[in-house]
Amino acid sequence: MELLGQSLIGASAVSGPEDDIAAIDMATGQPLAPRFSTSSERDLDRACALAEAAFDSYRDLPHERRAAFLEAIAQAILDIGDDLVVRCMAESGLPRARLEGERGRTVGQLRLFAGVVRDGGFLDVRIDPALPDRKPLPRPDLRLRNVPVGPVAVFGASNFPLAFSVAGGDTASALAAGCPVVAKAHSAHPGTSELVGRAVQKAVAACGLPEGVFSLLFDGGTAIGGALVAAPRIAAVGFTGSRRGGLALMQVAAARPEPIPVYAEMSSINPVILLPGALAARGAEIARGFVGALTLGAGQFCTNPGLILAVEGEGLQAFLDAAAAAVAEAPAATMLTPAIAAAYRDGVAALSGRAGVATLARGREGGPFQGRAALFATAADAFLADRALQDEIFGASSLVVRCRDAAQLEAVVAALEGQLTAALHLAEADHPLARRLLPRLERKVGRILVGGFGTGVEVSHAMVHGGPFPATSDGRTTSVGSLAVARFLRPVCYQDLPDALLPASLRDGNPLGLSRRLDGRIAPAGA
Amino acid sequence: MELLGQSLIGASAVSGPEDDIAAIDMATGQPLAPRFSTSSERDLDRACALAEAAFDSYRDLPHERRAAFLEAIAQAILDIGDDLVVRCMAESGLPRARLEGERGRTVGQLRLFAGVVRDGGFLDVRIDPALPDRKPLPRPDLRLRNVPVGPVAVFGASNFPLAFSVAGGDTASALAAGCPVVAKAHSAHPGTSELVGRAVQKAVAACGLPEGVFSLLFDGGTAIGGALVAAPRIAAVGFTGSRRGGLALMQVAAARPEPIPVYAEMSSINPVILLPGALAARGAEIARGFVGALTLGAGQFCTNPGLILAVEGEGLQAFLDAAAAAVAEAPAATMLTPAIAAAYRDGVAALSGRAGVATLARGREGGPFQGRAALFATAADAFLADRALQDEIFGASSLVVRCRDAAQLEAVVAALEGQLTAALHLAEADHPLARRLLPRLERKVGRILVGGFGTGVEVSHAMVHGGPFPATSDGRTTSVGSLAVARFLRPVCYQDLPDALLPASLRDGNPLGLSRRLDGRIAPAGA
Repeated sequence: MELLGQSLIGASAVSGPEDDIAAIDMATGQPLAPRFSTSSERDLDRACALAEAAFDSYRDLPHERRAAFLEAIAQAILDIGDDLVVRCMAESGLPRARLEGERGRTVGQLRLFAGVVRDGGFLDVRIDPALPDRKPLPRPDLRLRNVPVGPVAVFGASNFPLAFSVAGGDTASALAAGCPVVAKAHSAHPGTSELVGRAVQKAVAACGLPEGVFSLLFDGGTAIGGALVAAPRIAAVGFTGSRRGGLALMQVAAARPEPIPVYAEMSSINPVILLPGALAARGAEIARGFVGALTLGAGQFCTNPGLILAVEGEGLQAFLDAAAAAVAEAPAATMLTPAIAAAYRDGVAALSGRAGVATLARGREGGPFQGRAALFATAADAFLADRALQDEIFGASSLVVRCRDAAQLEAVVAALEGQLTAALHLAEADHPLARRLLPRLERKVGRILVGGFGTGVEVSHAMVHGGPFPATSDGRTTSVGSLAVARFLRPVCYQDLPDALLPASLRDGNPLGLSRRLDGRIAPAGA
Repeated sequence: MELLGQSLIGASAVSGPEDDIAAIDMATGQPLAPRFSTSSERDLDRACALAEAAFDSYRDLPHERRAAFLEAIAQAILDIGDDLVVRCMAESGLPRARLEGERGRTVGQLRLFAGVVRDGGFLDVRIDPALPDRKPLPRPDLRLRNVPVGPVAVFGASNFPLAFSVAGGDTASALAAGCPVVAKAHSAHPGTSELVGRAVQKAVAACGLPEGVFSLLFDGGTAIGGALVAAPRIAAVGFTGSRRGGLALMQVAAARPEPIPVYAEMSSINPVILLPGALAARGAEIARGFVGALTLGAGQFCTNPGLILAVEGEGLQAFLDAAAAAVAEAPAATMLTPAIAAAYRDGVAALSGRAGVATLARGREGGPFQGRAALFATAADAFLADRALQDEIFGASSLVVRCRDAAQLEAVVAALEGQLTAALHLAEADHPLARRLLPRLERKVGRILVGGFGTGVEVSHAMVHGGPFPATSDGRTTSVGSLAVARFLRPVCYQDLPDALLPASLRDGNPLGLSRRLDGRIAPAGA
């Protein structure tokens, strides 16, 4: 499929004034054709106006049609065929197997949200029937449903060019909620973005939807992204990226005449906590699993295990020896962009020069755009004294914090910033200590796991990919899993409306067969 | 009961350095004894430290004990007896019947949230069981529940000294969620606040809870309130008050190193939309109902009908004549504070001097702290050209906007800011127009009602007392009704935890008998 290098504004493809964006082939360092033009302010305004114009009819579609649309996007992405994988490999430096897996995940997310739409539970329908004879005052008839917030801006992420980008989780959940999407492509993978964007465009047309349901903007810098968050018609923002980028968008959103929510997933070092019983029983085995998770995808996961916490002792030494040996064997891996590779190199250099930080191992050397794994260690006293040791280094770098005893381990956990995940490795004898740690961890993270690592985020109903600041801008939400749809909904109450004016979801007789709360109690679907 | 004029810090009562707050007896304009001292920074720090210390054990209480605590607060408020009503009448200028009703509502809210806690549905338990044989990768065991966010700051409101103040809806919903509360009394009714605060303190002790579950601060200005929102241990804020006050708190919260959510209910003029069929059938009757709602409680409701929208025609004139006559008869009513009475006077004077605004009627004259009802009219063209005509005037003032035709009515609705409520008065012939208006209204308001007025907010499961900015800072939430508890919760996912380490709500066998989602499907309680 030939690439156009153009913005997708509703059903059109539009060139901007200058072709100023080129993806880099990460295998060669050379620019990839074609060049893409940054969207103009006019393109942005038109995308937002179309989204606004499409909103009422899109949100009013029967659920079955909205679900079929999500499935049509999934199919259209698959229909691109291998061109998508090949282009994405070149732009991202990620290997084929990973990208084929990520494509499967992207398609799976869209289908999961089709199921969410069909189920209708996201409407959270509540009905408190009128009590005309209640004293001292009658109760009116009250009915609640969630409605979509309005057009949503979605920012593509560098590290998941498919699953967290143009038709990734933010887009799928916003469309499922009933919100048109104006996406901003990540400048590192514009070709991948265009291919996916055109698949969405095709699904919009095939499903007979208003064109404004989806647009795709390009930006070599940050001006269009900032303007998109400031645009009056945008009602919410989804973002996955750096802390600096997320904070900048939060500030733009808070400074609007009408502030809007920004769901930014930003920065997390995902502590892995090794308890003494587990270390004694299987320190070396845990180390091998850890280094596998650390180096997966060149360490470029939001859930990468960047911090290891453990209590001093024999078990810890066995872990460290095995982990150092595995890191030393780890091949260098191509990173997503030249800038990310450089930032990784700088971050590792800075950490290795920090007072009290020892370098335990480095992975094999590689090319200029490749990252070498890195393992560091420090004492908990030093860690507690130096907040900078909590800064995320995006890539396959991890820091082991050696704690004097369990009490110091607890103090380190209490001093952590918000995180996406925390992993515990434990044996039965560790349960009492784990019970003391769990309440602390619950306050710090979105997901607590035992016996594994945070990499590998299941897309399901009970998943939380979120967590307190700075892991995300809004720890009350998740960006992965069916609960992600809640970010783009708000409740509206209807009081004493004649049945003929009520939305179908709230009508007497439950014509949509939804699960609804009657006087606060869940009534099964169809009741 | 004798008043101390002191802050309540956990189980203690503490005097500040200066007695600088005095309530005003609104009947006489004279200060009421005793004087209250502004809390010191030290009191604030100690209240927050106690709240933090109490958090883990409070949130871990069996639901039955948490529910019993909410009921004990309700009973302790009733146990104050008539002293509470008498003091509150003096401080607020509100009449006995209103305050007895508000006390009943406050007690009812606490009891509703006790039911919410017992039900356990607020935990939103989701379980996706492990699929060890899934290809290409097994699925881990994933379980989700909501956890409380942490200590919550609650600001008392001037206009509901009981139901939106020290033990009002924000406090009840935060405590139900499992969050300790640090309340800041409104300086207009410190005596009422102390009485209620001591009732909560008593319930904390009677239920054997850690003292930090509740503290009460006083502030004559804004310094302690601002410091409370900035305090590192505070995790969320509930506020009902002015737009200026809410915006100031939002800014403090956004500027924190770790931003936190502020749930501010601020400013709403609650449009009442009179459709032609309803006007023709019963214009004069609607007018009488409207003036009753307008003048209720001296117009000092968040849901006061401050804006009437109607299409020109005979029916409108009948409404205007009857409304003007009823307003002219309306007695002056004592307002909440001298400052509010002055602001109302200034707001009415400014509106009456605005280009294109005609004064239709004024209510009877009254004393210096009394408000005279006011009814104004303007043409839709003038309204659309002057954003200031949408500014809330807190009190019994309303503006009628005369629209040329239905299309202009739609344009006016589209130009409105976010609102708590919108009321439609309609006849069957008006349904087509109502159907066009409803999607617009859904985007602007938290509650749409037919045939009534927004005053009178039911406390139930399907209520939404919220709405897009500036009605509130966060239109995804409600501050009234059982859904209010969601503001103080966030989801946590537990992956592959041994059953022994899981919270009871998530354990195999469902020991708490909760309604839970299995693979996304609701399983009835006890399953």
